[in-house]
Amino acid sequence: MSETKKIEVMEAIHDENERIALETNQKLTGGGVFCVNVMGAPGAGKTSSVINIIKGLKALTPFVIEGDIESDLDTRTLNGMGIRTVQINTGGACHLDAPLIRDALDKLAPQKKSVLFIENIGNLVCPAEFVIGEHIKLLISTVTEGSDKPYKYPLAFEKADAVILNKADLAPYLDFDKEFFIKGFRALNPLAPLFMVSAKTGEGFWEVAAWLEEKAFSVLQGEKA
Amino acid sequence: MSETKKIEVMEAIHDENERIALETNQKLTGGGVFCVNVMGAPGAGKTSSVINIIKGLKALTPFVIEGDIESDLDTRTLNGMGIRTVQINTGGACHLDAPLIRDALDKLAPQKKSVLFIENIGNLVCPAEFVIGEHIKLLISTVTEGSDKPYKYPLAFEKADAVILNKADLAPYLDFDKEFFIKGFRALNPLAPLFMVSAKTGEGFWEVAAWLEEKAFSVLQGEKA
Repeated sequence: MSETKKIEVMEAIHDENERIALETNQKLTGGGVFCVNVMGAPGAGKTSSVINIIKGLKALTPFVIEGDIESDLDTRTLNGMGIRTVQINTGGACHLDAPLIRDALDKLAPQKKSVLFIENIGNLVCPAEFVIGEHIKLLISTVTEGSDKPYKYPLAFEKADAVILNKADLAPYLDFDKEFFIKGFRALNPLAPLFMVSAKTGEGFWEVAAWLEEKAFSVLQGEKA
Repeated sequence: MSETKKIEVMEAIHDENERIALETNQKLTGGGVFCVNVMGAPGAGKTSSVINIIKGLKALTPFVIEGDIESDLDTRTLNGMGIRTVQINTGGACHLDAPLIRDALDKLAPQKKSVLFIENIGNLVCPAEFVIGEHIKLLISTVTEGSDKPYKYPLAFEKADAVILNKADLAPYLDFDKEFFIKGFRALNPLAPLFMVSAKTGEGFWEVAAWLEEKAFSVLQGEKA
């Protein structure tokens, strides 16, 4: 197969995805649902971070779409906590896409004044390339992954609207170079807030929840105006 | 674009990749080079594990191909230690493929009686789907990523010829459920050895290096016979 043919196919897939994502985004905004695309490497603590943020919400009702290649471990945890959650299993695909989210939303039907967390596949590469209907991208990085991540996975850091640096409770046992991390992150993304948190202790998540609700209100009120 | 057309394109890409990977594998075997495809999530400690294994090698000369989306941080480290290393930057692609390795090998030209480590892109999904010419796949997982990884990223664990469980030095500060991890891993892969290691302290890497040299000799001697 020629390189040109491959590129043509990839572009067509991307274009179709963007069209559906835009439709979903407009539908969510109109329905009073603020949508957060949660991205991060395997084991970054995406689910436990979402749970901690949800605990800090004051005005919005949470809904979750869980993306995994296989298994429904996290969905069972979330539903067990009374958080309405729908599972997507991609069966191999390395990221969620807009058609998958459109279908999952039919099942989930989030109500007005809510925030929808979409937990993407654990992957620092592919999810950053595909919009799925979100208002913001929340990137979860960790001190255990090392301080060079913004240099090695630039697109995810560049596109993030906020970055959580998780597992702060382990920092005393690591050689994490925070200055080097921030330098790399800021070179790509000068404005997005950075939150130091620990999903184990809950440290730092009130600030994330407050920031997120403020952001949600500005997007959803913009719609009403 | 139709689903059928998409699948056709993907299959053609896979077939071409497999053909080139087989050629590379035969050339390496004939040339006395044992090739290890090193896979793992972002920040699993792929480079530091490779360095620790290299320290434990007794008879084989190491060569490295470093795969990254961007940056050459690890290649500079390795070359600075006197380990001949060539960098591949995929510029966005989420895994290495056989054509990229074929081209990098022309530059690296590993000698007889050597082991070639190919550090794949930090990603627990896509690299497991593409052979690149390797004799074995070495998967690096970590206790900090959590014990549910075999359940969530089954293909990488299923295809691994050996699994390293890294960052063992952090285990005392975590709720890592080793039994649950091993149960999930063994359901997918009953035979591959599992090594507990710490790339920080060096713990456990002599065993990995010894196992790897034994494996290399059996593959390369099979060629001579």
